[in-house]
Amino acid sequence: MTNKISIDDLNGADRESFIAALGGVFEHSPWAAAAVADRRPFETLAALADAMIAAVRAAPSEQQHELLAAHPDLAGKAARAGELTAASTAEQASAGLDRLTEREFQVFHHLNGSYREKFGIPFIVCVRRHTKWSILRTFERRLANDAETEHRTALDEVFRIAALRLDQLVEARDRLPLTGKLSTHVLDTHAGRPAENIPIVLYEIDADETRRPIVETYTNRDGRTDAPLISGRPVPIGRYELTFSVDAYFAGRGVPLADPPFLSVVPVRFSVADPEANYHVPLLITPWSHATYRGS
Amino acid sequence: MTNKISIDDLNGADRESFIAALGGVFEHSPWAAAAVADRRPFETLAALADAMIAAVRAAPSEQQHELLAAHPDLAGKAARAGELTAASTAEQASAGLDRLTEREFQVFHHLNGSYREKFGIPFIVCVRRHTKWSILRTFERRLANDAETEHRTALDEVFRIAALRLDQLVEARDRLPLTGKLSTHVLDTHAGRPAENIPIVLYEIDADETRRPIVETYTNRDGRTDAPLISGRPVPIGRYELTFSVDAYFAGRGVPLADPPFLSVVPVRFSVADPEANYHVPLLITPWSHATYRGS
Amino acid sequence: MTNKISIDDLNGADRESFIAALGGVFEHSPWAAAAVADRRPFETLAALADAMIAAVRAAPSEQQHELLAAHPDLAGKAARAGELTAASTAEQASAGLDRLTEREFQVFHHLNGSYREKFGIPFIVCVRRHTKWSILRTFERRLANDAETEHRTALDEVFRIAALRLDQLVEARDRLPLTGKLSTHVLDTHAGRPAENIPIVLYEIDADETRRPIVETYTNRDGRTDAPLISGRPVPIGRYELTFSVDAYFAGRGVPLADPPFLSVVPVRFSVADPEANYHVPLLITPWSHATYRGS
Amino acid sequence: MTNKISIDDLNGADRESFIAALGGVFEHSPWAAAAVADRRPFETLAALADAMIAAVRAAPSEQQHELLAAHPDLAGKAARAGELTAASTAEQASAGLDRLTEREFQVFHHLNGSYREKFGIPFIVCVRRHTKWSILRTFERRLANDAETEHRTALDEVFRIAALRLDQLVEARDRLPLTGKLSTHVLDTHAGRPAENIPIVLYEIDADETRRPIVETYTNRDGRTDAPLISGRPVPIGRYELTFSVDAYFAGRGVPLADPPFLSVVPVRFSVADPEANYHVPLLITPWSHATYRGS
Repeated sequence: MTNKISIDDLNGADRESFIAALGGVFEHSPWAAAAVADRRPFETLAALADAMIAAVRAAPSEQQHELLAAHPDLAGKAARAGELTAASTAEQASAGLDRLTEREFQVFHHLNGSYREKFGIPFIVCVRRHTKWSILRTFERRLANDAETEHRTALDEVFRIAALRLDQLVEARDRLPLTGKLSTHVLDTHAGRPAENIPIVLYEIDADETRRPIVETYTNRDGRTDAPLISGRPVPIGRYELTFSVDAYFAGRGVPLADPPFLSVVPVRFSVADPEANYHVPLLITPWSHATYRGS
Repeated sequence: MTNKISIDDLNGADRESFIAALGGVFEHSPWAAAAVADRRPFETLAALADAMIAAVRAAPSEQQHELLAAHPDLAGKAARAGELTAASTAEQASAGLDRLTEREFQVFHHLNGSYREKFGIPFIVCVRRHTKWSILRTFERRLANDAETEHRTALDEVFRIAALRLDQLVEARDRLPLTGKLSTHVLDTHAGRPAENIPIVLYEIDADETRRPIVETYTNRDGRTDAPLISGRPVPIGRYELTFSVDAYFAGRGVPLADPPFLSVVPVRFSVADPEANYHVPLLITPWSHATYRGS
Repeated sequence: MTNKISIDDLNGADRESFIAALGGVFEHSPWAAAAVADRRPFETLAALADAMIAAVRAAPSEQQHELLAAHPDLAGKAARAGELTAASTAEQASAGLDRLTEREFQVFHHLNGSYREKFGIPFIVCVRRHTKWSILRTFERRLANDAETEHRTALDEVFRIAALRLDQLVEARDRLPLTGKLSTHVLDTHAGRPAENIPIVLYEIDADETRRPIVETYTNRDGRTDAPLISGRPVPIGRYELTFSVDAYFAGRGVPLADPPFLSVVPVRFSVADPEANYHVPLLITPWSHATYRGS
Repeated sequence: MTNKISIDDLNGADRESFIAALGGVFEHSPWAAAAVADRRPFETLAALADAMIAAVRAAPSEQQHELLAAHPDLAGKAARAGELTAASTAEQASAGLDRLTEREFQVFHHLNGSYREKFGIPFIVCVRRHTKWSILRTFERRLANDAETEHRTALDEVFRIAALRLDQLVEARDRLPLTGKLSTHVLDTHAGRPAENIPIVLYEIDADETRRPIVETYTNRDGRTDAPLISGRPVPIGRYELTFSVDAYFAGRGVPLADPPFLSVVPVRFSVADPEANYHVPLLITPWSHATYRGS
């Protein structure tokens, strides 16, 4: 956040500084920044991003292939050895690829090998839009593609990675439409008002069905959380569980409950398919019933 | 089931056979059967049960104490050594007390010791009405009681055990009101009809939050299961999770779904507090919403 | 009900009596009964109905036309003059065609005229499967058909009328699958149990949006009505409103309510499209929320 | 709105102008404004309102009685003759008291007479917080009060009237907390997104159960209405019905529907008890189910 470069400074910088600043937007490929340096000034971040992407699209296919080949393996040996770019390191960590079990590492190792063998490039995916589960799922699906489809798909992922990197690097009047939102709301339909002070945990469900808590929070007086559960970034494609602990709330309101209460921890499982969308997952609750839905 | 004695046979039997047949209804205490042998004939199982329970209630408190003391420890050394009555063995197995981890065994061992020290009798609970989780919960609560309350509570549990034993032993026109029911129903409110062929799993949630599958089934054409999930016996006090796998169902109907689908495995967590009650836990489902409630 | 003829008696009757008994199943057309008299015995009502319908289907088209032409106008002058067969009189009354306003009479008069002019036969519909609203809706739609479609549609309606008449006339081991069901159920999800003693009114919504009460009842201890709202006959195609008066119920349970209560009379509007189907329309209710769905 | 006086102008005005400007805040009682003229300046509208109300509370009870007596009858002869103050005329019109049927006029006439006879003052209620139905309901209830309760209640209503008049007269940095809100939201849980372009009508239900449309609108892309159904003023205590016309929406989405559709016009009936509260009444809808609740 704090170390962003302003778009005005980029527009005013000399050519070398411009390329240096944006040289890492495409992995090990400063030529993409070089290709647009003379098109300055850029009014908006969107214009800058479009220009860089267009430059890559217009590049000869050998150069595109070099760009793809310059990407590191996902959860590969280079990552283990700490040899990635800072951007790649942070990205792989965002999906937990930096803390794989030995078995998961072997799975990735095997998939990386099969993919390189079939397509001659590393497997590239914009990991900030994914959980580990969905990366594995995508990996297996994409292995079945033909080479042309996969070349196109890999480029699209590179563009997504580049856009997210640009958005984090550059301060401008606009932001790129790369963010989604996950939020919730608890309505007590027994009392006809928002349910306050309900403990909420958001879990990510992993490939082996274990769940890992990623947000812990409480509802406020309006039955909402003070901040969205996820916002300001893509909501990673994946499987989630929200739990709402409602028994102490109803007991605190003096509602007569069974012993043990019929409802105590209410789990809601759902999946995210579109990282740039808004997911509102509210809970309507009484001591004897609940309902949820994808809201807006 | 098959080896039940008919109440008519009991009424017509000689005194010794009657006592032999019902001598185990109260643990190691054939005197309860002896006390009612001359009151025959009994029209109904309810009349027989009432008479035997009344006989125990009317017994001197030393004899009641002996009856209580004749019970084995729950999950105790006698159980491990295979020294229980057949009835006790089956009862303890019903709540999983025959397959404790070493750590659980130690917890029971410790609780058994504290209880005997405080009250001079073993801890008695009608385990067929409980899960392991609720036995432990009850155990800890009852340890805090005073001796008089606990004597009374233990007797009540003995009467529950006796009634369940009688109901399993004796064939009669009536049955004792000892059974509850757990059922479900899946309504597809996207199509306005029952959801057929939905895989359902009923899990018991243990004290350590792990879940153990106890019923696996499917919905039929009416959106119900061919048989209730639990019936013909008490529904053990405890914590449960029902899971409904709905994504393949909606895909099979040709409904356009997100990838991954917003809803896939829908969990519903609830607790049972009243083993003799009916618990109907239906699911109303669309690809984007669900609702559940305690129904009837 | 009480005056039904048994199928055994019909099988044993002489030819003339058989024809006399069933001569009115097809309007003014005893030849349909005559055509099957020698095929006796009929095991089931279904076999008898199939045979009579097959006889009419096999008849020359002039005879079919005569059968269609033998039907009275709906809500026509003959009805006003009391000149209909008893069966027709009862059928037209079932949909309220015997108590039209002058304006409604004019509408029917006009439609009857247009229909006869276009198709050369009276408009025929199985009115027991309809409300007045849906008869008018069907009338207008069918006026747009071509003659061949309408001839076929009219015959199908004649077969429905015949089947319902047969089912009312004849006692047999089987009944014809001509009945639907409309039922409801009120679950109090505030207390987690059925809502007892809830006043319910079922209204039919007329073409002019006025509503006419057709059933008034209460929920019983199970939250259901002692008898289905409609059963043992087709549920007429039409628009309905169910109202549930819930405020006195919640006040009686001692639930604190707003003044006036947020929910008092809860209306549920729905339409019936399939008279032979089961319509279960339950209500899930708290003082602050409600839900309904087509159940099963 | 446009003709408001600013609080700064009131603070700077000479004494006579101040009294002239606020003389009508209490009906025919400029002495309340006079009593606070020398306490100027008032920082906020709230401070001004508090001061004027305190002045009336502190006045001798004869003067309070005169203030109460200076109010016109509700829907009385003075109103018919056009002899009310402009403020009273607008207020009575807000609840429809200017368009009574002859029968309603007689009811009010009778109640006015009984009330004056019992309490010696006219019946006073802040009509902007009521519908005609709730005015009649309140009228009948308050007739049963004792004189002291009714004196106090009448003064409270006078203060509410005064506050609303002040809020409409004076422009300031603050506004008095006199407004509520009624809003809705339609979620299509069949598609998992807001339902757009749903026709909505808000009706007020009158004492004779007839309903009068007061707002007609549509949902926008977010499933909400562009403006709340009611806002910026009290939501009158009363009975309401919202109708949502959903069949054309689902047909437009290409959803297969029954003919006629199971759900067409969905009515939701509710009452408002607290005019200064927020009432959010959303609808969750599929072609076969709907749910509503008091949300937030």
